Amino acid sequence: MADITELSNIISDKNRLVFAPSIEAKYLSDTLGRKKGSASALVFPVSTEEVSAVAKFAYENRIPLTPRGAGTNLVGSTVPHDGAIIIDFSLMNKVLELDKENFTAWVEPGVILEDFQKYVEGEGLFYPPDPGEKRASIGGNISTNAGGMRAVKYGVTRNYVMALELVKADGTVITVGSKNRKDTTGLDLKDVVIGSEGTLAIITKCLLRLIGKPEKSLSLLAGFGSLKAGIEAVPKILKANLNPTALEFIERKVVKLGEDFLKIKFPLESEAYLLLTFDGSKEEIDSAFAKLGEVLKSSAEKIISLDDAALAQNVWRIRGCLVKAVEAVSEQEPLDIVVPISKIPDFVEFVNELERQSGMQMISFGHAGDGNVHLCVVRGSRSDAEWESELHANLEKLYAKAHNLGGLISGEHGLGVSKRDFFFKETPAENVALMNSVKLAFDPQGILNPKISYVK
Amino acid sequence: MADITELSNIISDKNRLVFAPSIEAKYLSDTLGRKKGSASALVFPVSTEEVSAVAKFAYENRIPLTPRGAGTNLVGSTVPHDGAIIIDFSLMNKVLELDKENFTAWVEPGVILEDFQKYVEGEGLFYPPDPGEKRASIGGNISTNAGGMRAVKYGVTRNYVMALELVKADGTVITVGSKNRKDTTGLDLKDVVIGSEGTLAIITKCLLRLIGKPEKSLSLLAGFGSLKAGIEAVPKILKANLNPTALEFIERKVVKLGEDFLKIKFPLESEAYLLLTFDGSKEEIDSAFAKLGEVLKSSAEKIISLDDAALAQNVWRIRGCLVKAVEAVSEQEPLDIVVPISKIPDFVEFVNELERQSGMQMISFGHAGDGNVHLCVVRGSRSDAEWESELHANLEKLYAKAHNLGGLISGEHGLGVSKRDFFFKETPAENVALMNSVKLAFDPQGILNPKISYVK
Repeated sequence: MADITELSNIISDKNRLVFAPSIEAKYLSDTLGRKKGSASALVFPVSTEEVSAVAKFAYENRIPLTPRGAGTNLVGSTVPHDGAIIIDFSLMNKVLELDKENFTAWVEPGVILEDFQKYVEGEGLFYPPDPGEKRASIGGNISTNAGGMRAVKYGVTRNYVMALELVKADGTVITVGSKNRKDTTGLDLKDVVIGSEGTLAIITKCLLRLIGKPEKSLSLLAGFGSLKAGIEAVPKILKANLNPTALEFIERKVVKLGEDFLKIKFPLESEAYLLLTFDGSKEEIDSAFAKLGEVLKSSAEKIISLDDAALAQNVWRIRGCLVKAVEAVSEQEPLDIVVPISKIPDFVEFVNELERQSGMQMISFGHAGDGNVHLCVVRGSRSDAEWESELHANLEKLYAKAHNLGGLISGEHGLGVSKRDFFFKETPAENVALMNSVKLAFDPQGILNPKISYVK
Repeated sequence: MADITELSNIISDKNRLVFAPSIEAKYLSDTLGRKKGSASALVFPVSTEEVSAVAKFAYENRIPLTPRGAGTNLVGSTVPHDGAIIIDFSLMNKVLELDKENFTAWVEPGVILEDFQKYVEGEGLFYPPDPGEKRASIGGNISTNAGGMRAVKYGVTRNYVMALELVKADGTVITVGSKNRKDTTGLDLKDVVIGSEGTLAIITKCLLRLIGKPEKSLSLLAGFGSLKAGIEAVPKILKANLNPTALEFIERKVVKLGEDFLKIKFPLESEAYLLLTFDGSKEEIDSAFAKLGEVLKSSAEKIISLDDAALAQNVWRIRGCLVKAVEAVSEQEPLDIVVPISKIPDFVEFVNELERQSGMQMISFGHAGDGNVHLCVVRGSRSDAEWESELHANLEKLYAKAHNLGGLISGEHGLGVSKRDFFFKETPAENVALMNSVKLAFDPQGILNPKISYVK
């Protein structure tokens, strides 16, 4: 058995090395705090060299490693297991280079998303990925291939990662990707690491791609007689290349939750809504607004431009508070099922029906432009045992339905430890086997986040 | 030793199975025809089941497999070795599904790029990847992650592949990816297959992403006093989010080759040019043109709009004929080096200097928007031996320079057998080792395109 205190030979600064049982509880869980793990040590490295040395020590002693960004994940990806060493990246939080000629930035993985967004916007540049949780770390965003609101126009985090410096399980440091915009020079190792939730390698540096900052941004709210009518307008919007930055759907009953929570009113009464944002120059936005009017003419009940700042703010506050509105009343399980765009109405109808049948409240809303349906499954007054068993039964039905519609368990949160069983149930055995082979190609001893890996 | 004639138990149609020595020479090479391989059989499957059965036979008998699309590659990726079985996909060339609600198409890998582009454009849709070789197959495009002219706005082939049906080396059929626009449900196996040049698995079906067809498209030519001045304008164009579809650079001396070859004139006399295209609505194009004028005001000598169809055609004919103009005079080696955008002038200056020093003609032009520099290295009147040794010496210098500038050997052609040695020279050993481990995770016996794999 390894002597874990030997880590002090690598991290000599006592403030950056904590041993069990002195590790604070928050480091043993995710942001929901429901799942608790066990760790033998918690380190706060400040350099790739330190991360490499810690990995080498763990590898030689077969100790699991749990990389940790800002700990904002919802699926237990940062829950350590079996006496793992937690590698916390909060001190590796610097922007190392901003290259304005090539539109790239090298950053450390602990950089916080909104800090980075603000920094580059101050330089006239723009980092498009914009997941809901702004205090997440860039490393965490990459590890879950985070999506968010602007994905319909700009794509997901994957599309903005040009290179990664990685520490492999055995401590080897390698860089995958480059500052080049095209690459067919050998296998694409970078993309398989993106979204791998810390199971393949530890990210120590990130090269991100930037774009010019859009001049303006304006939102618009369209009301429909039914969710189905709203969703049916989506392919028309996409086909017309209107390129909305955001294209969200919400049902009336969900808006009401937000209205009651914030004590403010939505400016439009309809059964369902599409909420759109456009960005670009004034001419581009005007042209898109005009065309949108044409495209929605026969289907929308009413369209209002949110060019009044206070009005826009109210609408987005309601859209933004939905999870909090639910959580103010009860514990909830957050899902991020994704289905092909055309299947959103079928899926939401199924959710509404399951809500009626099961008596468990389910709030759905999300990204109409990419089929990503966010769902809050609400605990209400259930006892621990009731909540656990009823939730599990309903999750099985929801994931099975999504699978039947050609959908997937997770669009942007990841699997973590929370969704593993459902993942194995809905994923063909050959895919799981191949994922496992690739995992072992990167990490032959399986020490990186073993509990969320691809081994049943 | 396997009895290769047993393949007739799988492919019973005699027209779809050819044994050596009756295999036509073109199947033993690439489009350049300089490299010749050896194969024991050539099959033309019509279904995934046939491909799977052929792979199983090859796997059990340890016979190499060489998948082949339209054979338009330039780097020997379709050169078979060691008595391989060539799997030609020309009969698997059907569009299987067009899903207009989800903007996707399932196609077989043998579908020809320009046929597919025309088909979807007829339906009001658009497939953005547009590599120079329009008669390439979709499967080939995916295997090299083909880029092309529109990549600066729309990205490369990778960005338009949503799912792949694959036959693994042992005959297992698996589907990676889906119709969903977001996915963080397990490892991204799809992206590591894209660009892997047939070394990981055999593609039997492709799910492609489409967009709405742009209303219009217009080009514009800007002349500069030097290539450097032209390239220095590129970050400004990108920062202003002008989003050109194409952003090409050409030097005067290269234009002259095209003028002489086609006996037509370029409409503008300058030392270097940027050739841009914009697509979208009339308003979007007008707005981009106006802004471009602002952005280039201080650097361009002159800008002319190519709104006259005949004028535009002449310019694009000259840009399009450059390789042919070179080949009309002499054999040439086509390179597709990629460097960070800001390094294009350094690289082209090096090329011009090497041309002077070595006496070997080198024609460079390419994609300024993504750093992809196409280079024709011209044989002239050299003997076979002179050509081989001088070319090799110059390639070593060119690739070393690209590497020094942070560039890569291949942006879109792939490595094939032609660039392997340079790849090993310029790629860190840890990266090569990891590529090899991933290769073996997919193909443990190494029978898929073994000569272009990641083993030294």
